[in-house]
Parts: sequence; structure tokens; C-alpha cells
Amino acid sequence: MIKVSLVGTGNVSQQLKVAMAESEGIEILQVLNSRDGSVRKSLYASSVNLPDIYIVAVNDDAIPIVSEQLNTTKKLVAHTSGSVSIDALPKAVRRGVFYPLQTLSKSAKINFKEVPLCIEADHKKDVTLLRKLAQCISDHVYEVSSKKRKHMHLAAVFVNNFTNHLYHIGAEICKSNDIPFSILHPLIAETARKITLMSPQEAQTGPAIRHDSKTMEEHLVLLKNSKHQEIYQLLSESIQDAYGKKL
Amino acid sequence: MIKVSLVGTGNVSQQLKVAMAESEGIEILQVLNSRDGSVRKSLYASSVNLPDIYIVAVNDDAIPIVSEQLNTTKKLVAHTSGSVSIDALPKAVRRGVFYPLQTLSKSAKINFKEVPLCIEADHKKDVTLLRKLAQCISDHVYEVSSKKRKHMHLAAVFVNNFTNHLYHIGAEICKSNDIPFSILHPLIAETARKITLMSPQEAQTGPAIRHDSKTMEEHLVLLKNSKHQEIYQLLSESIQDAYGKKL
Repeated sequence: MIKVSLVGTGNVSQQLKVAMAESEGIEILQVLNSRDGSVRKSLYASSVNLPDIYIVAVNDDAIPIVSEQLNTTKKLVAHTSGSVSIDALPKAVRRGVFYPLQTLSKSAKINFKEVPLCIEADHKKDVTLLRKLAQCISDHVYEVSSKKRKHMHLAAVFVNNFTNHLYHIGAEICKSNDIPFSILHPLIAETARKITLMSPQEAQTGPAIRHDSKTMEEHLVLLKNSKHQEIYQLLSESIQDAYGKKL
Repeated sequence: MIKVSLVGTGNVSQQLKVAMAESEGIEILQVLNSRDGSVRKSLYASSVNLPDIYIVAVNDDAIPIVSEQLNTTKKLVAHTSGSVSIDALPKAVRRGVFYPLQTLSKSAKINFKEVPLCIEADHKKDVTLLRKLAQCISDHVYEVSSKKRKHMHLAAVFVNNFTNHLYHIGAEICKSNDIPFSILHPLIAETARKITLMSPQEAQTGPAIRHDSKTMEEHLVLLKNSKHQEIYQLLSESIQDAYGKKL
């Protein structure tokens, strides 16, 4: 049984709590609020029953400050951020990273078994401990360096944050023209499914790759938001750059 | 039983053929190649058994020329394009549109019942006929004007073509850093699933909406392709425009 304390009360902590509570190999000792002094208090109060691992699931900026408070423990302290190096943790603790590569919100229940978990630690035995913990909740556990994780997080920004913004623009176009956005749901689902069957390169279609300038000009006229026009133009250019000139 | 001739041999024609062949309400008389004169030949050869509807599933540019050849028939002629007006069809034919709002490729088998089908025709009885045909293969049939369809197609370019290009950029980042792209598949699937549970606005996360300029600057340094840097910057700005200033 691995004993865990979760630090932070946001989306990541909440989803980890649900997944860990369902696992027989994990006991959650506490969920500590990082802002109300309860981290320090817990070190005194529960000194007889400290966790094996502190999972620090707080905002990127707060990671150094919050984990600094765990300096006095000899326990493993792992943050959950994609973009923050393991070096952001104080040297005095046993440092680790426990990064779920997924978009986690409080309301959308997900199957954690399918979430890729990226782990990292300074010491081999801590990698082993983190792997054991990770395997209790996910079938996809990877040991990933801080450098690689940063690139992974950057790729995630494109396929998640930016993609979601394109959905938003699609929804805006629908709204302005009295079209229910839900009519695009099957297309969005199929676009995501397709790249599990073929590469995005093979899946690319549309006016830009066809160099169909007539349709592209018409689309630019239809777009009323100048930022959306810029995005249309830049992404079309980038598609044409990626696939070469018209034959 | 509705008798159909498919004109064109591309992805859309191929997928319609598969879906229509499975329906008991539809008989496919022929699949005609639009380029080898077989459209004209068919008009002489099979004059005793003409279809009720010609579905012209050819490239946007070829729609007027190909359907011109069907001038002499008194049959309904419907094209399958999202961006082309019904007016692109010659006035001498009974004009219609039969637009599947989905990304169709020859290899990826899809469940046509879930594909939204957008229909349009000049005459009421032809709308009825197209609806009857559409309902044989899909559970989601909408009567949509040419103007509305153009906007729908524009929204589809954002959520399909451009989104797929962001997947491509994500795949490129993975490739350059020796990360398997498949590690992003669960994130891509969840990003698409999430907007069926909440609006894209509610689902937006990431450095841009958090105004996390430190991470954004680091990401711009990690990106080696200048076009990808421009896309990162423009989409981040657009996200910040959409959600207002940092509090």
C-alpha cells in the first residue's frame, strides 16, 4: 500500500483523488489546501503517519513555494506540471514529477487507465516508487526527462489548447449564422479518430492543401473577425508550406 | 425504392456507395466516371432505366461541366459540395444539393448513420425526394440553404482542416524530440469529447488563457519552425482576445 498526500485542490488533484481512491494499492492520507497553512500544520499533526509521496498538484508558479514547506520531510515530493522542470523543486527534498498528459477538469469524468503518466525522479528507487504508484491508476506509464516533457507539453498545447480554440471559432461562426454547433460534433470526433488510423499528414484535406484559392477568398470574405481572418490565412499558408507547391 | 446514379469515383462517391448499398430503400444503378465520357454514354445506353437522382460527387470546379452533360434528363441532379452554391448547377436540370458534413476518405470506414446530411433543392418535391434518400442512410438530415451551408463549411475548415494541421505540428514536435505521437492520442480524443459535454469556451485551458508569459516565452524558444512560432503567437493572442485581460 502506497500512502499519498495530495497537495492542492484544483482539477488535477481532484481527478487524481478519484482515480487513486478507486485503486487498492493506494491510500490517500490527506488532501491539503496549499494556501491555508494546512501543509505545515499537517507535518506536526500527523508526524506518526506521514505519506510515502507528496503529490504537489498546484499552479506552476506555486510549485517552488509550496514544496519548500515540505523541506523537513524525507519523503518523495512530486509535482504534476508538464512545463516545469524537476529543478523547480527544492534540493532538500527527494524530487520527482508525476505528470498526467491529459486535459483534466473537475466535471468531465475520465477513464484514468488510459491517461499517459510521465514520471521522473532524481533517484532510481524513487523512479521505481513513482512507477508503482502510476501503474496503480494508469496502463500507460512513461519515464520522461524534464527536457522531453517540456516538448511533450508544447505539442499538447497545439493539439489541445489551440485545437479547442479552433473549436471555439467554429462555434462562433455557427452562432453568428444560426447553426447549432452540435452539427459539427461528428466531424470533430471523426477528425480526432482519423489520426489514430493514419498520420495527420495523410489525413489533411481542405481548400488550402488543394490550393483552391477561389474558396479560400470566399471564406476570408465570410469571416467578420479580423483575428479569425489572420488565423485562416496563416494556417492555410502553413498547410501549403508543409505539403509543397501545387502541381 | 429510390434509384440513384453516382457520378464521380472519389472518396465521397465511394463512401456514399457503401452506405447506399447497405440501405434497402436505395438501388444504385451505376457509378459513372466523370472524366471518360461515360456520363454521356449512359444517357443513351440506359434510357429505359434512368435514375431518380444523379448524385454528382466530383471536385468543386468540375461540378458545372459534369452536370451540364445531364441537361437533357428531367432528373434531379444534386452535388455534394459544402462550399458550392446550388446555382453552380445548370438551370436546365432539376437542381439539388446533398452535402455530407464529414471528412470522408476511402480507407477510414465510418458509420454513415451519424453523418449530418445537408440537403437543398429548388422545388419542394425535390426536397422531399432528397430527404427520403438522405434518411435511408443517415439519422441526421437537415434542410440548409446555400448561404448557410457556406458558413457551415467554413466552420468545418476550422474544426477539421486546421485542427488536423495542428495535429500535424504536434506530430512534428514529437518526431523532432523522439517522442511517439501516439502518446498524444488520448489527449486528442478527450479534447474532442469534452466539447460534447461543455462549450469550447468552458473547456479552454493552457498558458495563453492563464496569461502565463513565462511558459509562453519558453515555448517560443523551443519551436524551431518560424511558421509554427507565428501560429503559436497568433493563436495565443486570439485566445487572450476572446477571454479578456488578466485580472
